[in-house]
Amino acid sequence: MGLNILVAHGGGPTAVINTSLQGVVEEARASGRVDKIYAARFGAEGLLKGDLIDLTDVPAEVISRLSHTPASAIGSCRRKLTEADYPVVIEMLRRFDIQAFFYNGGNDSMDTCHKVNELALKEGLDVRVIGIPKTMDNDLVVTDHCPGFGSAARYAAISAAELALDASGLPIHVVVMELMGRNAGWVTAASAMASRLTDCEQLVYLPEVPVDVDRMLADIEKGYAKGRGLLVTVSEGVRDIHGKPLADTGIVDGFGHVIPGGVGQHISDLIVQNTGLKSRAEKPGLLGRTSIPYVSPSDRKEAYEVGSEAVKAALRGESGYMVAIEADRSGGTYTSRTFLTPLAGVANAEKKFPMEWIIDGNRIADEFFAYADPLMGGDFPEFALLR
Amino acid sequence: MGLNILVAHGGGPTAVINTSLQGVVEEARASGRVDKIYAARFGAEGLLKGDLIDLTDVPAEVISRLSHTPASAIGSCRRKLTEADYPVVIEMLRRFDIQAFFYNGGNDSMDTCHKVNELALKEGLDVRVIGIPKTMDNDLVVTDHCPGFGSAARYAAISAAELALDASGLPIHVVVMELMGRNAGWVTAASAMASRLTDCEQLVYLPEVPVDVDRMLADIEKGYAKGRGLLVTVSEGVRDIHGKPLADTGIVDGFGHVIPGGVGQHISDLIVQNTGLKSRAEKPGLLGRTSIPYVSPSDRKEAYEVGSEAVKAALRGESGYMVAIEADRSGGTYTSRTFLTPLAGVANAEKKFPMEWIIDGNRIADEFFAYADPLMGGDFPEFALLR
Repeated sequence: MGLNILVAHGGGPTAVINTSLQGVVEEARASGRVDKIYAARFGAEGLLKGDLIDLTDVPAEVISRLSHTPASAIGSCRRKLTEADYPVVIEMLRRFDIQAFFYNGGNDSMDTCHKVNELALKEGLDVRVIGIPKTMDNDLVVTDHCPGFGSAARYAAISAAELALDASGLPIHVVVMELMGRNAGWVTAASAMASRLTDCEQLVYLPEVPVDVDRMLADIEKGYAKGRGLLVTVSEGVRDIHGKPLADTGIVDGFGHVIPGGVGQHISDLIVQNTGLKSRAEKPGLLGRTSIPYVSPSDRKEAYEVGSEAVKAALRGESGYMVAIEADRSGGTYTSRTFLTPLAGVANAEKKFPMEWIIDGNRIADEFFAYADPLMGGDFPEFALLR
Repeated sequence: MGLNILVAHGGGPTAVINTSLQGVVEEARASGRVDKIYAARFGAEGLLKGDLIDLTDVPAEVISRLSHTPASAIGSCRRKLTEADYPVVIEMLRRFDIQAFFYNGGNDSMDTCHKVNELALKEGLDVRVIGIPKTMDNDLVVTDHCPGFGSAARYAAISAAELALDASGLPIHVVVMELMGRNAGWVTAASAMASRLTDCEQLVYLPEVPVDVDRMLADIEKGYAKGRGLLVTVSEGVRDIHGKPLADTGIVDGFGHVIPGGVGQHISDLIVQNTGLKSRAEKPGLLGRTSIPYVSPSDRKEAYEVGSEAVKAALRGESGYMVAIEADRSGGTYTSRTFLTPLAGVANAEKKFPMEWIIDGNRIADEFFAYADPLMGGDFPEFALLR
């Protein structure tokens, strides 16, 4: 008699979260030691209502398509579990006779995982709880990086380079590109690849560095004057020197915080109004986490591995861990392997972008690319520039 | 003694305009009948200044990379040639001893081509003038479609489907996507593929149909209420029932027309203010014409062919034509071939989106996809939806 397992998604998806699901399902099947494979429909919502999807008999051909399906194939939600919810989760695990529970998410989800594990131990429930990391923001600690980041970074890097070529090949306006990452600049930093792959001038603004608007506009005029076009890439979460979002939606969230929004268009408007230059803003937004053609091959591979390793760990009887990634970049080659790290150490902690990788407030140091290039999958386009 | 040839780009680039350039260069080399291969640096600007790039000895390996280089590898501009400019162009053709001139562009460029050809004939200059079509907007007449459209359509179709999966997999907000195409809905119509490839509800707004804002908001509430998420795709150029842009930049162009802009964000704001639903807007903008990973294979193939055919036609002594595409969709298969059509018949004419392909103002008929599927290259993703 084998185990019954349950997997759930938490929070925003990445381009490879379904690849981790594929890893879970295929490893469970290959092991020969799993009976039922369940998924929570729309994450915590399905978990609390006992609304599970039975994946046990889904054809292998459909499962294989998960690696090319963006967003969450089983559904996710933004509901953060509260103290009152944990006993409900335990009850559901009991009702469906679950022996292994996998939660695939970011900081909040690892906190949930940790608390479910603690309560299961207290209640003497025989369930192994393993966290599977996922976040395009790359802000989980202990792990070298998070599955989902490499693809979001590759999207930012290559699509910024493509925009840069448009900006330098038809130099009639400044192009401003807004990128996701409200508090951490990991993804926006990757967009700095644009000036490395093209002939275009570029300025990069991360949420870690308060923006002096006057200086920014002066730098934009200076950059554009070089005559090779100008691309400005900016995180949606950049703040001014007073700590306020440079642009906001006018909407206040449940905690009374103003929700930032539309900063790319706002900077573009500032350029038009203050410099006499033309400008336009692009905001691929959610495409940065859903675009399959820009997925990083190494990210896809590792996303699969953290899923399959979670199942292996549970089958070994491990519980209370997140699957993390260790990377070796020595000697100019990149290799990575998974390891288990206690959930308690990753729950609610946040990895910051190193300030020493930001040069003069608007350029990115080589050290970042030494770290991130292999995560983006390498093999960057080499363009034919004839002009 | 062979011919000296000159190629120039006009207006906004497409994802495959460099592939047509590759077709020109490789055909010229293969013919053995071309001496010098020149390109105008930044289009009309280089043409008028006599600022030419000599491509004659650029390595074949660099030329082969053109099919994977977005924007214009030789540079383009938005300068429309005036009557006073044509004699300058003739003088440059004479100065550089050019026997074949290729202008790769849209309506305006074909008009330029036509006038240069007329003036050359009048002045007894022995130069063959051939237009190479290019426009993501697909608004050139006579030709079945334009190189550049298939890739812009594929981008709109697949990236809209990816956004739709995000919207239905984490259904916390309406997602609004703004697409290029100020006057013609060809590209935005392609985005209607999203609901065909996914489980998400979708509404599509083209510039051809005046938008009744109250009805649109009611349809958005109704669509979202179905519980499968909602994607709204909208052309940047949609107008209200009074014929005014639904959103404008506040900037007036040289002809006194208000420049439309930011309509996606505007609709998203209207949703938040009037329906109680959450909403966010994405605007990939120029990425819709520069993204190489979304290029349509059939579009790339045809873009190459119109370039190589232009050279063949000039070598046969033809002049005053544009290379057009004839397509055969009978029997469920797609084949296409090039033919020559007089420049006079395509200059300044505009192909409209058929109104009978728009259903109830916000859906797209199957007839459009029968026309456009092969241009987008077919082979659309099949997603794994398990929820």
